[in-house]
Order: sequence, then structure tokens, then C-alpha cells
Amino acid sequence: MSVLITGSVALDSVKTPIEEHHDLLGGSASYASVGASFFAPVNMVAIVGADFPKKYIELYRQHGINLDGLQVAEGQTFRWSGEYEWDLNKRRTLSVCLNVFETFQPNLPDSYKSTPYVFLANISPQLQMHVLAQVGRPKFVVADTMDLWIETQRDALVELLHKIDCLMLNEGEAREFTKQTNLIKAGRLILKQGPQFVVIKKGEHGCLLLAKDLFFSAPAYPLEDIHDPTGAGDCFAGGFTGYLARTDRVDHNALRNAVIYGSVIASYCVEDFSLTRLQSLTQPEIKGRYDLFKVMSHFEVG
Amino acid sequence: MSVLITGSVALDSVKTPIEEHHDLLGGSASYASVGASFFAPVNMVAIVGADFPKKYIELYRQHGINLDGLQVAEGQTFRWSGEYEWDLNKRRTLSVCLNVFETFQPNLPDSYKSTPYVFLANISPQLQMHVLAQVGRPKFVVADTMDLWIETQRDALVELLHKIDCLMLNEGEAREFTKQTNLIKAGRLILKQGPQFVVIKKGEHGCLLLAKDLFFSAPAYPLEDIHDPTGAGDCFAGGFTGYLARTDRVDHNALRNAVIYGSVIASYCVEDFSLTRLQSLTQPEIKGRYDLFKVMSHFEVG
Repeated sequence: MSVLITGSVALDSVKTPIEEHHDLLGGSASYASVGASFFAPVNMVAIVGADFPKKYIELYRQHGINLDGLQVAEGQTFRWSGEYEWDLNKRRTLSVCLNVFETFQPNLPDSYKSTPYVFLANISPQLQMHVLAQVGRPKFVVADTMDLWIETQRDALVELLHKIDCLMLNEGEAREFTKQTNLIKAGRLILKQGPQFVVIKKGEHGCLLLAKDLFFSAPAYPLEDIHDPTGAGDCFAGGFTGYLARTDRVDHNALRNAVIYGSVIASYCVEDFSLTRLQSLTQPEIKGRYDLFKVMSHFEVG
Repeated sequence: MSVLITGSVALDSVKTPIEEHHDLLGGSASYASVGASFFAPVNMVAIVGADFPKKYIELYRQHGINLDGLQVAEGQTFRWSGEYEWDLNKRRTLSVCLNVFETFQPNLPDSYKSTPYVFLANISPQLQMHVLAQVGRPKFVVADTMDLWIETQRDALVELLHKIDCLMLNEGEAREFTKQTNLIKAGRLILKQGPQFVVIKKGEHGCLLLAKDLFFSAPAYPLEDIHDPTGAGDCFAGGFTGYLARTDRVDHNALRNAVIYGSVIASYCVEDFSLTRLQSLTQPEIKGRYDLFKVMSHFEVG
């Protein structure tokens, strides 16, 4: 089965205490689409400017990503720049130039309209709903969000929650959205607002998958050398949704596995800047790290 | 096999945003000993004052804890008071009165001197070494520590690391001790200083067990109603060491299980103030939650 992914495509400048890189391929749709491409065919919905480098179009194509829904508009591509502290968990946004993204209001190509799996990556909830409304009877819809929308478009976000199957957000956002410090309570409160599943991403502490009758805790892969955490959450979501599309099942075991495969893709993503590491990532490497996740959390009754 | 446990015994005053209780049984040795008592016979080494309530002596006895090493001295019992914010992860110490604990320099009863498993709960590393030196050829020694000793007795702590098998500390302490924000790197640095194993406790995020050739990540039990987090780490350590003593094995699977049983005991501890919940805790309840830990982190290759 295929996955429709909408979100931002950006040219990023990223600074860590050790390295600095400019004009990197970034944006939630880029990371999620490449992440998902290891599992299923991807239909991307996004916008770029006339300045968007051909090499990045080529990169998408190498991952078999369908670009019928990638609009190339007059003007400049969305640009983001950010800086990480020594503790790579802390990020500061230095600048955001929306450029062509400001007027993004996509009409889906007909060939996309029956995509069974959908990932609405981090864009405004209004825009997420605008895209979703054009998809006929999707089997499973996952959405990401961020603090900005929780603060400025809460009503639209609450409306979105009734239209999706799974909300994905990080622990700070879960606490902010629910005003609840206990993450389990926060997760349960989100479940009451519509989605059947919620995934709370905790960075170096792994993530939680909650449903009414499901609690799954996945560890993070124990990386000692993280080069650039940008896009890890989007790669996670892409891998998660891509895996569900590949198996075409959304039972609890499929969802648990989707969390692990998402974690695997995210763990590779952060090993280098932008999508560099994922460009050389192989299926045996994915399987190898999946097996390590199993060992990491396994215990035999003793 | 039996476990020797040394640490503090205190009378605590604990305030949360919802409740406040005084003269509670507390101290690292109390929590750890009761936690361990569910798995193995415990030899406690600690000091209390003449004011120490008989009902707490009775509580220890009900858990079969050997009190030959519990010194009752002239004067007042160690007293601690602390306050938790709404986010129960944040604690503020309001007062500490060492009282009889100030001159604690125990001589072990002869019957304790060949105890095979040892847990040195949180007291000064000097005092931990003083106790350990009196135990002949223990099979496995676990030690806890805290920020105070990292800051004020670093040399003694480093010396201690060469004498123990497993260091247990929380994530903030691991980062502080190693000056390393990445927890995996922090763990590896600690392993280079002596102990064969390190356990990093992460509260609501579970814990990590590291060795040269072992990485195990355990989730936290998803509690929605935590009443008092005091003593959770000590209960964890007590359950951990007690389980190892019961199985009398320290292979990787035994250690993984010890982490889970420690987590189970800690998860019950925080459901009420002081040791109240553990007083009524049963073996079937322990087994039941152990099984839930398995379900929480389990996924079938799919």
C-alpha cells in the first residue's frame, strides 16, 4: 500500500557546537517521505520555490517518491535555520522564511486521492485538514503537530483530532496541550479527544504508544555520536506510517513494530546532517538495528 | 542468599501539592531493605535514635529484616523533610537534621560478615567503604550515590567505584559525575572507572543497564497516580539486589530481570507515602506487574 505525506520542504542551515552546514535538504515532508520510502511507495504533497536544487529532486526520485504533488512555485523555497547546544536535546530556531510556503494550499493530483495511508507531517492543522479532506476514505491517518499550533491554532488542532487515527507529538507538546505533567495522563486525555492512538516521542528516552487498551514503551537506540537531531521525529513518523502501509495492518502488534521501525529510521537519521545517512541506508542495516531493539528490551522470565 | 543493606534510617516529613505527612518511616536503608525483603533475607546496618518509634521496628520485623546491625543510640533519629512540586519529578529539601546519623560508624555483627550480596545505599562513599571492608568476599556489590557526594567527596567515590560491581545513580547524577550530557557516553565513562555494571535511573522514563557487552533499556510502569516518589530509587535498588540474591546468579538475564523486579517494587512504592503500599504488597501483585512489564515492551517480529 502507498502513503500520502504532506508537510514542509525546506532548505535548512544547521549549526551544532562542532559543525555547521547550509542549504541542506530539510522540512518535515522531506524527512518523513524518505523515511517512509524504505517501506512503501510515497506520494508527496509539498511546495518548493524555483531555487530548489535539482539534486534534491533527484534524491527524492532515488527513493522512488512520487512527486506529482510537489508544486514548484515562483519564488524562494521555505528556509529554516537553527542551532543546537552541546546538549543536542536543546535547539534554538535562528530564522524562518516561509517564502513560497506561505501560500501553500495544495490540490491533490487525482492519482493521490485514494492513498490508503496518510501522514500529515508538521504543518498548520488547517492545512493538514485541507489535504486530508481531499483523500477518499483513507485506512489510517497519522498527524504530527508542534507547540506553535498548540499555542496559536488550538481549535483547529482539536478539530483535526476527530479526523485522524493517531496523533504523534513530543513529550513537551503533550504536556503543553493537556496541561498535564504526567505523560500517561496526558496521553489518556488526548485519546479522549478523538484519535484511537497517540505516540509520545521522548527523544533519548524513546517513545510511548498508547491506546485505550494498549501501552507500549520503546527504548531509544543508544547512540553515542549524534551529529544532527534535525528531522528525527519526522523520520520516525515516516518509518512508522510506511511500515503500517507495507504490512497493511493496524493491529496492536503491527503498531508496536511500526514504532520500532520508526525508531530505527530516526536513529540512522541523526548519525549525519540532513538526509545524508538515509541516502546510503540499506534494508539489511534496518533489519540489523531492528534486531538490536529487540535485544535491548528483552528479558526471559527468570 | 541474603543481602546486606546499609544506609540511612530517617523520620521524614513529606509534602506534595495534595497531601502532607510527618514522622514517616524513611531513609535509604528502610526503603531498600523492605524492597529487598520480598526476594531475600536482609541484614540491615543502620542507626536510629532513642526516639525511633517501636512500630517501625515492628514493620522491619514483619518483613523478616535482621536488625542485629541496627544500632539504637542516645539522641534523636535522622530527620529529613522535603516538598514536591506539581511535577512530582521536582523535589526541594526543606531541612536535614543528621542527629545520631552524624556519628554513624558501624561495626558489623559477626553474623553479617559473610553476606554474599551487598547494597550500599546512599550514604557517604567513606561510610560505604567502611561497611564494605568488613564483609568478607561478597559475590556482588551494588552502590548508590547522590549529587552531594559527587560534589563534595569525588575522590572517595572514585575509590569506591573500584570496589563494587554495579553503580546505581540517576540520570542527572550520571551527567554531573561524567560531565557528559549523552547518557550512553556517561554510562560508558563510569564503566571505565571500575564497576562492571552501571544502572542509570530515569524516573518516569525507566532505566538503563549498561555493561561492556550489554545494553538493556527498561520502561517505567505507566502510573497515573503517583502519591509520593520518595524512596522509589532505594526500593528499586533493594528489589534489584534482592532479586539477584534470590536467584544467586549475576548473568545478563538475571540482571535484566533484577532491573524489572526493581522497577516493579519502585512502582508500588510511589503509590502511597512512605512504605505504606509495600506493607500490603503481595507476591502475586509483584508477579502480576512483572508480567505487565513484559507486555509493555514486547513486540513480535512482524
